[in-house]
Amino acid sequence: MAVTIDIDVRYRDLDALGHVNNAVIATYLEEARTNYIDEVFGAGLEEYTFVIAHLEVDFERRITTGDDVAVTVQVPALGNASVPMEYEITADGQRAATAETTLVFLDAAGEGTAPIPDPVRDRIEAHEGH
Amino acid sequence: MAVTIDIDVRYRDLDALGHVNNAVIATYLEEARTNYIDEVFGAGLEEYTFVIAHLEVDFERRITTGDDVAVTVQVPALGNASVPMEYEITADGQRAATAETTLVFLDAAGEGTAPIPDPVRDRIEAHEGH
Amino acid sequence: MAVTIDIDVRYRDLDALGHVNNAVIATYLEEARTNYIDEVFGAGLEEYTFVIAHLEVDFERRITTGDDVAVTVQVPALGNASVPMEYEITADGQRAATAETTLVFLDAAGEGTAPIPDPVRDRIEAHEGH
Amino acid sequence: MAVTIDIDVRYRDLDALGHVNNAVIATYLEEARTNYIDEVFGAGLEEYTFVIAHLEVDFERRITTGDDVAVTVQVPALGNASVPMEYEITADGQRAATAETTLVFLDAAGEGTAPIPDPVRDRIEAHEGH
Repeated sequence: MAVTIDIDVRYRDLDALGHVNNAVIATYLEEARTNYIDEVFGAGLEEYTFVIAHLEVDFERRITTGDDVAVTVQVPALGNASVPMEYEITADGQRAATAETTLVFLDAAGEGTAPIPDPVRDRIEAHEGH
Repeated sequence: MAVTIDIDVRYRDLDALGHVNNAVIATYLEEARTNYIDEVFGAGLEEYTFVIAHLEVDFERRITTGDDVAVTVQVPALGNASVPMEYEITADGQRAATAETTLVFLDAAGEGTAPIPDPVRDRIEAHEGH
Repeated sequence: MAVTIDIDVRYRDLDALGHVNNAVIATYLEEARTNYIDEVFGAGLEEYTFVIAHLEVDFERRITTGDDVAVTVQVPALGNASVPMEYEITADGQRAATAETTLVFLDAAGEGTAPIPDPVRDRIEAHEGH
Repeated sequence: MAVTIDIDVRYRDLDALGHVNNAVIATYLEEARTNYIDEVFGAGLEEYTFVIAHLEVDFERRITTGDDVAVTVQVPALGNASVPMEYEITADGQRAATAETTLVFLDAAGEGTAPIPDPVRDRIEAHEGH
């Protein structure tokens, strides 16, 4: 079940060509991701450490101020230590970009990977209906 | 022939966990890319329009302030309309991330793709020794 | 008559201490300012050149993600070439910062200052009820 | 004794008009400030809490990529709880902005102000030759 957020495009998001900069698109994804994490991963999250291991974006349309921007995110099948996420960004209802990230849980030392904690796995799978 | 630039990590590049934010890594890539474009693509670039069509990053190590950061970029075999670029980011001499981007030339209307202009293709291939 | 906008605090707005960075506060002001300019300065604005000549912020409370942030801006008495703006930023209804900026109109060459164009002056004064 | 740092202007620092955005200037000041703090305030700084209470910038010239940018910072006479800092930003050797910030030390609870810790005061005054 996808979670969607709206993004307010800021003037500072534009680059010298007047379009939302490619790095800022990664920030838009981050807003959708942190919102998903807050809503779905659940309480107790401060006990876990995870990092972004992979980011991939296909840019289809340029975005600018005044565009009505939304980001949708969902989690397909979970790995052992990793949570894949798939995104779609729309501007005025038209697809502007698609993206994927991989979030990886780390062990207590923050060095090696660790299995997705069971409560987190359960909540994601319940949310996504896997 | 790879082109390498040094990056000064700014305090503003850090996120709430004290590491360089993933979106800022895309900005570091952009610095290497714009530097490569300035050095290699050559004069007359203002006549052409190109956009980033694809961005892909694998994050291997977290970066923080005080790290000695460098970004290396090179162009493998050229496509018809697209210029692929491969990057390596190091922090204190250790690989922190690898990345790829695809830059696509657009036609005069900025709508469809266009072949890489011949002078640009020639300069890239001379530089890379393809 | 003050114009108020809401700000979505982004995770990227935080610095390593978990608070909205001071430079990002300047971006929040910019959002209020560009919104005021769009709403009040009126059509034909692309004919004019103006720049920010002065920025001044008093930070009173730290802001973080989850805070309900709003920025209010109004224009006190106009100068000859300059438009002063006064701002208040609130977080969860409590004042977090106050600020002032001075916007200066430039001549066609973009070198010297120029009087505020009459249509812009008229619209601001009508809006503010000066 | 002023401390000077060089700034690499990034493409991402530019706004839609092709100049370094006003909020990014605040980030340039922050780079000079954190560098001064690291060099002068001395070890043990992690024991103290301080915040930026005031920021003031006068913009004189626009800065763009390719400009050779430097920021100089010095501390005039110290207050009881507050450390004033004065900055000058140059671009290609010409003054582009001047600025002031006030940094305030907080008590252990992070609520009220606290006197500048003696070791910090001593190091600043030794450095500045007050």
